[in-house]
Amino acid sequence: MRLKASQRCAEVESFKVMDLLKRAGELEAQGFKVLHLEVGEPDFPTVPEVISAAQEALRADCTGYTPAAGLPQLRQAIAEFYAQHYRVQIAPEQVLVTPGASGALLLAFSWLTDVGDEVLMADPGYPCNRQFLRVLGAKAQTLATGPETAFQLTAKMIKEAWHEKTVGVLLASPSNPTGTLVSSEEMQQIAAEVAARGGQLLVDEIYQGLTYGVEAHTVLSEVPEAIVINSFSKYFGMTGWRLGWLIAPQSIVLEMEKLAQNLFISPPTVAQYAALAAFSETALACFEQRRHAFAARRDYLLAGLKRLGFQVPAVPEGAFYIYADASALTDDSFAFAWELLETCQVAITPGADFGLHQAGRYLRFAYTQEIEIIEEALQRLQVFLAQR
Amino acid sequence: MRLKASQRCAEVESFKVMDLLKRAGELEAQGFKVLHLEVGEPDFPTVPEVISAAQEALRADCTGYTPAAGLPQLRQAIAEFYAQHYRVQIAPEQVLVTPGASGALLLAFSWLTDVGDEVLMADPGYPCNRQFLRVLGAKAQTLATGPETAFQLTAKMIKEAWHEKTVGVLLASPSNPTGTLVSSEEMQQIAAEVAARGGQLLVDEIYQGLTYGVEAHTVLSEVPEAIVINSFSKYFGMTGWRLGWLIAPQSIVLEMEKLAQNLFISPPTVAQYAALAAFSETALACFEQRRHAFAARRDYLLAGLKRLGFQVPAVPEGAFYIYADASALTDDSFAFAWELLETCQVAITPGADFGLHQAGRYLRFAYTQEIEIIEEALQRLQVFLAQR
Repeated sequence: MRLKASQRCAEVESFKVMDLLKRAGELEAQGFKVLHLEVGEPDFPTVPEVISAAQEALRADCTGYTPAAGLPQLRQAIAEFYAQHYRVQIAPEQVLVTPGASGALLLAFSWLTDVGDEVLMADPGYPCNRQFLRVLGAKAQTLATGPETAFQLTAKMIKEAWHEKTVGVLLASPSNPTGTLVSSEEMQQIAAEVAARGGQLLVDEIYQGLTYGVEAHTVLSEVPEAIVINSFSKYFGMTGWRLGWLIAPQSIVLEMEKLAQNLFISPPTVAQYAALAAFSETALACFEQRRHAFAARRDYLLAGLKRLGFQVPAVPEGAFYIYADASALTDDSFAFAWELLETCQVAITPGADFGLHQAGRYLRFAYTQEIEIIEEALQRLQVFLAQR
Repeated sequence: MRLKASQRCAEVESFKVMDLLKRAGELEAQGFKVLHLEVGEPDFPTVPEVISAAQEALRADCTGYTPAAGLPQLRQAIAEFYAQHYRVQIAPEQVLVTPGASGALLLAFSWLTDVGDEVLMADPGYPCNRQFLRVLGAKAQTLATGPETAFQLTAKMIKEAWHEKTVGVLLASPSNPTGTLVSSEEMQQIAAEVAARGGQLLVDEIYQGLTYGVEAHTVLSEVPEAIVINSFSKYFGMTGWRLGWLIAPQSIVLEMEKLAQNLFISPPTVAQYAALAAFSETALACFEQRRHAFAARRDYLLAGLKRLGFQVPAVPEGAFYIYADASALTDDSFAFAWELLETCQVAITPGADFGLHQAGRYLRFAYTQEIEIIEEALQRLQVFLAQR
């Protein structure tokens, strides 16, 4: 037998943090208390309303296939959420429920690109985007970004970088790993540039709702023709349920549905019934409380990191990450993360997982842990830095 | 904006049965009782053991991400199931739990093919296989098969058809839509041909366990280096849970895991805890009872179709489908299916959904309904044929 991966598979990169995680597991098995500031998963449990709705679905044996684009009532509920919370009118048919945002990304990239096509995106960014495109025989056209543009692409950058293979742009607002946003004004200018070139704008709003001191927002307010990728994992705290959604302009929904039929059959059913309860008043109140908790953690961690000598030149206003510039402390953030884990049992994600541009300067700290743990992590960091 | 699908997306085909299903829905809304013999989903509810295990997972809030390849205890349970039921030794690490068999197919094809590569498979076959490859910029190299080879590829056919772009073969045993199997002897010869050409053998065993008068089997008994695609949807009756698995030779597991990390993050968590209970003695006893029920339905439907003038030259020994040759009754099976739905409200799947080869002769009948419904469908068919 062949037993040899395709070239595309060989080129797909694994998450560099995985080796650190493996080592963290070994340390934990030896009895060490590892502090996990690398995890992109909220520490809060699923809200009781969602759990109850799932239990009700199980009692009623609602476990069969659903339509490929999801339960009509869930598509409706998502559309209503946009109307109520973002004052944006979308038809329920524009919403495709997907197996996680991962499913939505696969749909969007499959719909947009042919083999050899390129999609503009910021470096640093969510690592899987590049790998999805690789698997499809397309390519991420990454542009180096820094604090001067809050690690986001600008209309000017897009205009200059666009070439004949470019078919679209992916923005993430709030962004992983930087927590930064794209302003409405910039978004409109970007959309105009993309439209002028006959491209398509995709916007990852997976961290929508998790903003601090800034109102939650959707690109659909200013660019109704954007394709939006979203998820129940982050604001709604439903990671392992594997449920996301995509919002597409009406004219392309049938094409997206056809893809979804073939690629997924349907999204997980119990999760869909459960997600219906995520829009209840009590659940939404709980999510808002959690947002306030995240805001407090951000403030605490941000102040702590700065005190220790990290620089955070672009204020993270969303998601639950701080992308800290450690260049005053190290010229190799990967080695730094590894040493920190070995000697002080604090796990963080090296910049190398998010791109190539000055990755050795940066470290991503997730504030998906209680403030007491963040406090202890900062103390250990202080000891670590004093010892070096 | 672009608002125009990529070429690959435009070329992806939708299921032809979807239009029929839409019409069936309209008829039902008008008060007609439609008999559904088109559905590839067992009518049995999820077994109580699995429901209870899911409820327990919800109570314990086991809803976070799991490792990309699935819960270690589930991988272990699947490996043990092979040892106990198929006397095949596989390491738990060889098992990758996936979001449905759809996820496993995406992994397998991404691993195997580069852009332009081709994978040999039988026409007729499961339609999504061709579409997965299209999305990846690769291609299904379909070979026309008929009753003389039980609609399966043979070593001889593979030998003759293999060309420089061919990188592997996908077999399905039991097959959708034909319910036929590949014998151990033929499988060995096929594996030898594939190995001699440096290709890879993939085997879809999604309907494993659903065989009638023939013992359940895995290709791993004779070809340990095959890549196997399987699912909790069919034998285990867990369709909407979206859980499948892939078994890979040890040497390529890490590559597969890397792909899974990037494409899925992880399979649905509650479904994974639930699936652990699918291997309990009581659950397995229930699945065996259901298998007997399917066997009785098959016998009943097979005899009934033959009585009405359909030919079924290759005996369906597995899955829950009969692929009936209707050429004595029609030269256009799609029009036949449509008329049958309109005038007698019986829904079946036209051959055109499964390929091009003599598709107009064939119709797929699913026996995923109680025998009383099958009886009524046969009566309506009789009236329909008498009226034509």
